[in-house]
Amino acid sequence: MPERIPVVEKILSANDRLADENRACIDAAGVFSINIMASPGAGKTSLIEQTVRAFSSQYRIGMINGDILTSLDADRAAAAGAVAVQINTGGNCHLDAVMLQSALDQIGLESLDLLIVENVGNLICPAEFRLGTHKNVIVASIPEGDDKPHKYPSMYRGADVLVLNKIDLLPYVTFRMDFFRQGVAVLNPGVTQFDLSCRTGEGLQAWYDWLASNLSDRKVIFQT
Amino acid sequence: MPERIPVVEKILSANDRLADENRACIDAAGVFSINIMASPGAGKTSLIEQTVRAFSSQYRIGMINGDILTSLDADRAAAAGAVAVQINTGGNCHLDAVMLQSALDQIGLESLDLLIVENVGNLICPAEFRLGTHKNVIVASIPEGDDKPHKYPSMYRGADVLVLNKIDLLPYVTFRMDFFRQGVAVLNPGVTQFDLSCRTGEGLQAWYDWLASNLSDRKVIFQT
Repeated sequence: MPERIPVVEKILSANDRLADENRACIDAAGVFSINIMASPGAGKTSLIEQTVRAFSSQYRIGMINGDILTSLDADRAAAAGAVAVQINTGGNCHLDAVMLQSALDQIGLESLDLLIVENVGNLICPAEFRLGTHKNVIVASIPEGDDKPHKYPSMYRGADVLVLNKIDLLPYVTFRMDFFRQGVAVLNPGVTQFDLSCRTGEGLQAWYDWLASNLSDRKVIFQT
Repeated sequence: MPERIPVVEKILSANDRLADENRACIDAAGVFSINIMASPGAGKTSLIEQTVRAFSSQYRIGMINGDILTSLDADRAAAAGAVAVQINTGGNCHLDAVMLQSALDQIGLESLDLLIVENVGNLICPAEFRLGTHKNVIVASIPEGDDKPHKYPSMYRGADVLVLNKIDLLPYVTFRMDFFRQGVAVLNPGVTQFDLSCRTGEGLQAWYDWLASNLSDRKVIFQT
């Protein structure tokens, strides 16, 4: 069906325009923003919970969660101390810029320092849709296997930060770290990498330091 | 963009027609066929490897693997003793009936007893596209978390069999079995369930028994 290609291109470029508008709003509010992507169960929500707990006394955090149906993840982020807005995609397999735009209208960007977007759990489709956030963070996890960068190149290629979660499970599964790193190095040699466990807390500090440094680099217009 | 909906409906019903054609071909060859779906890293390929090893002395097995880019999984199935055909979806996030049709042309159904289709690693999109296989098998895994049936209902609703893999990791992660089972019971109370570990071998026999029983129920037209 080659006649579908122009339609898809049109949708993607419309998405890019909206992503630019989202970025302009986020920048105008002096907010630092990240888009967290991963396959289901890699630990996006656990990373967000830990991060919100660690940062909520110092920074005002908003969390926009994309999920097919439930608000389970947004509830967890809200319980940890974030202002949370839920986007139910109604079966859609990714967030796009127009969905984020409507959530931005609700969340009150002017009262935030940090905006965390949790994308739909999917290692393929979210990579195609820019949202307008500053950094793309991909969460990988030890039990999902060492072949993932090789098999899902688009997602790994587009990441600014790669968090490798669940390192506490390394003794119990087969995971060839060399093979994993090799895949990452080919696709995205400059990606910032953190190995950590949201469960035990190991390695989280380096991730916090990266986030804190980006937050302090932002020109925050509205102070509490 | 509401004008897109009729197009999507047309594609889905065209897919259903092709799925019926696929089923007719598979039935005519006396082959039993399964479509294995899961999120990335749940253990589809490991389950297939173990199954091929266990069955290849008795049955002729074909494996059709859907992947975005590599042939890593098909290579593993071939090494275990299956006739393997790779479908590179070129970025597409699921298999559909037309992709399966072209792979069926290549694999030589007449020389097979069992056809295993490994879908693209994705817990959302593959559920929308019938392929024409006899049974849908979903592989869940302990480390991906107990909330997955609640969050990815379409996939769980459409499954005939639910394999819960990596039960050897239960002591090392937080997984509320009750909460998981609750989600499954609401969506798909009649689903056949197997708890197992492809790594340790625990629980695999019950899965083999189910498969063997389905294979012996088939009217095999071509015998070796």
